[in-house]
Amino acid sequence: MKPLTKIHPTAIISSNAKIGSNVEIGAFCIIYDNVDIGDNTIIGPYCELGVANGISNGEILKIGKNSHIRSHSIFYEASFFDDGLVTGHRVTIREKTLAGKNLQIGTLSDIQGHCDIGNYVRLHSNVHIGQKSKIGNYVWIFPYVVLTNDPHPPSDTLLGVTVKDYAAIATMSVILPGTTIEEGVLIGAHSSVKGRTEPNTVYVGNPAKKACDTSKIKLQDGSEQPAYPWRKHFHRGYPEHIVKEWLKN
Amino acid sequence: MKPLTKIHPTAIISSNAKIGSNVEIGAFCIIYDNVDIGDNTIIGPYCELGVANGISNGEILKIGKNSHIRSHSIFYEASFFDDGLVTGHRVTIREKTLAGKNLQIGTLSDIQGHCDIGNYVRLHSNVHIGQKSKIGNYVWIFPYVVLTNDPHPPSDTLLGVTVKDYAAIATMSVILPGTTIEEGVLIGAHSSVKGRTEPNTVYVGNPAKKACDTSKIKLQDGSEQPAYPWRKHFHRGYPEHIVKEWLKN
Amino acid sequence: MKPLTKIHPTAIISSNAKIGSNVEIGAFCIIYDNVDIGDNTIIGPYCELGVANGISNGEILKIGKNSHIRSHSIFYEASFFDDGLVTGHRVTIREKTLAGKNLQIGTLSDIQGHCDIGNYVRLHSNVHIGQKSKIGNYVWIFPYVVLTNDPHPPSDTLLGVTVKDYAAIATMSVILPGTTIEEGVLIGAHSSVKGRTEPNTVYVGNPAKKACDTSKIKLQDGSEQPAYPWRKHFHRGYPEHIVKEWLKN
Repeated sequence: MKPLTKIHPTAIISSNAKIGSNVEIGAFCIIYDNVDIGDNTIIGPYCELGVANGISNGEILKIGKNSHIRSHSIFYEASFFDDGLVTGHRVTIREKTLAGKNLQIGTLSDIQGHCDIGNYVRLHSNVHIGQKSKIGNYVWIFPYVVLTNDPHPPSDTLLGVTVKDYAAIATMSVILPGTTIEEGVLIGAHSSVKGRTEPNTVYVGNPAKKACDTSKIKLQDGSEQPAYPWRKHFHRGYPEHIVKEWLKN
Repeated sequence: MKPLTKIHPTAIISSNAKIGSNVEIGAFCIIYDNVDIGDNTIIGPYCELGVANGISNGEILKIGKNSHIRSHSIFYEASFFDDGLVTGHRVTIREKTLAGKNLQIGTLSDIQGHCDIGNYVRLHSNVHIGQKSKIGNYVWIFPYVVLTNDPHPPSDTLLGVTVKDYAAIATMSVILPGTTIEEGVLIGAHSSVKGRTEPNTVYVGNPAKKACDTSKIKLQDGSEQPAYPWRKHFHRGYPEHIVKEWLKN
Repeated sequence: MKPLTKIHPTAIISSNAKIGSNVEIGAFCIIYDNVDIGDNTIIGPYCELGVANGISNGEILKIGKNSHIRSHSIFYEASFFDDGLVTGHRVTIREKTLAGKNLQIGTLSDIQGHCDIGNYVRLHSNVHIGQKSKIGNYVWIFPYVVLTNDPHPPSDTLLGVTVKDYAAIATMSVILPGTTIEEGVLIGAHSSVKGRTEPNTVYVGNPAKKACDTSKIKLQDGSEQPAYPWRKHFHRGYPEHIVKEWLKN
């Protein structure tokens, strides 16, 4: 075993799995053959990593270093997560999920696989990411949002959703198949969005309509400053060099 | 133990449970007394089958043969599933669920029991089926759909939803108490449906209104063929003799 | 060990945890250091109680007596539940949740912590309670309801939702940040509610509008009696002395 790595005696770990240094694996975990866990990563109890799907031929599940996967989470084989992945509890991640640095995935979120996710993306609790979704960098998706993909269900046609950098999709919105959420867009809570959008614009309603430029929304903290682009005032959890860049431009 | 049956040594299996031949039961499972698992069935890790509810007096949970229950799923006693049940992860199935052949239940779906489900029904992820629901054959229900039952909550009145053959209910729709979704109906995403519907008709919106005949919707695969009835073009996972019948009529 | 207490041999219990008399703890549970479980409580299998969050410095998780926590549930440290807590399966409860007597929390519900909940509150399945929520007594919240808190996400501003006594929020409704749901209000299914409400009033739609007084809604059980206030006819699960009071006034 690598230095400092601590595996709970009740955990079941394949001898083929590759486990880095200073990794903790909690009680009642199952780690299958084709898993590669980076250094300094914590895996909470009851996690099941590297589930086979009968299709991926044992391609590896790679979890980058400095990650934290919370308890009761399930990851299939054949996915890649760059460093600094952080999850809530009970996330379910299917095969062919390709994700950048420091992805955060909230409790109960369900990523259906076959999707691309950029750097520093935040998915809150109970988010559902359909297959063929493409998510940029610094995107926020809030609870109970669904990115769909079938324009006439059920069918064999999959038209994934695209979400570009800095966009934010509020609670319980449905993004319809093939829709593109442009850079800096804000989708209001409980909206249904279809088709094209314009950057830095607010869409609200079911069906969603253009409401205003995001710059029209003011912070409700007494400052009267604009709430968007959010990167001008909201920095929790981002590295210093990125925040510096945001404040410069 | 029956021939070829493999039970993980960490699983806790009641000696009263009836386990068929060539069954696999994963690590950390709990199988209680009144469970009957058919031949050639796979039960993933961390499943709990036959949970008592204090009401059903030990009536059995019957899982038909050739089934696959994925990890972290919970089934109560006193339900019946015909052959070929397939579930995602973390499904929760309460007592008195009566289901036909080859039911598929997606990850996180929650069936509240006291309901009837036909043959070849597909429930996608995170579907909530209220008590007293009646679901026909070949029905599709997509993520975050809820079938409700209380017309004036909270109360002791339960008016279940009925969904007839070949109907499809898209993502995040709520079907209100006592509603009947007729044969071949399509409910658009994020709709709220109440009352009566007409067969082979599209309903969309909150509240949902009649949009058009389902035959008006064309496939977005370049073929210009009608997308409904879906059974004319979508056949993945159905047995050959059924597909043959669909294509004949 | 206290009299009559039964801990499954596979459960992992910290010697620092305080476990009352006649407590049952199921298979594969993990009970951490700072947990205090009252007498006559049942903890189902696969539960994880007292999860540390790195902030709460080991403040205790107190579960009152006569409680029943169903399987696969996760509770963080630093919360308090008065007697008679009942949960479904897979609930996730973060730190600084303060709850009164006989709270019921349905399967998959997710309480984000830093919130106050009164006595005899019922949360159905898959309810999401955001931080800074304040919920009164005898409140009902139905499946897939979300209480939000960020008026311009993402931001550092948290404006919690307030829900007052006897209010009922039906399935798949979103309550927007800072909203107050007044006493006896009924929110119809699939609504989005923002701002102020009037007591004993029905709000429906997205965005929700005032529909009528709750007293206008009749029971659909043939009695022609008003359905609200619900406490005049719905008594399941409430103690006799409370029901007596309800029927008197």
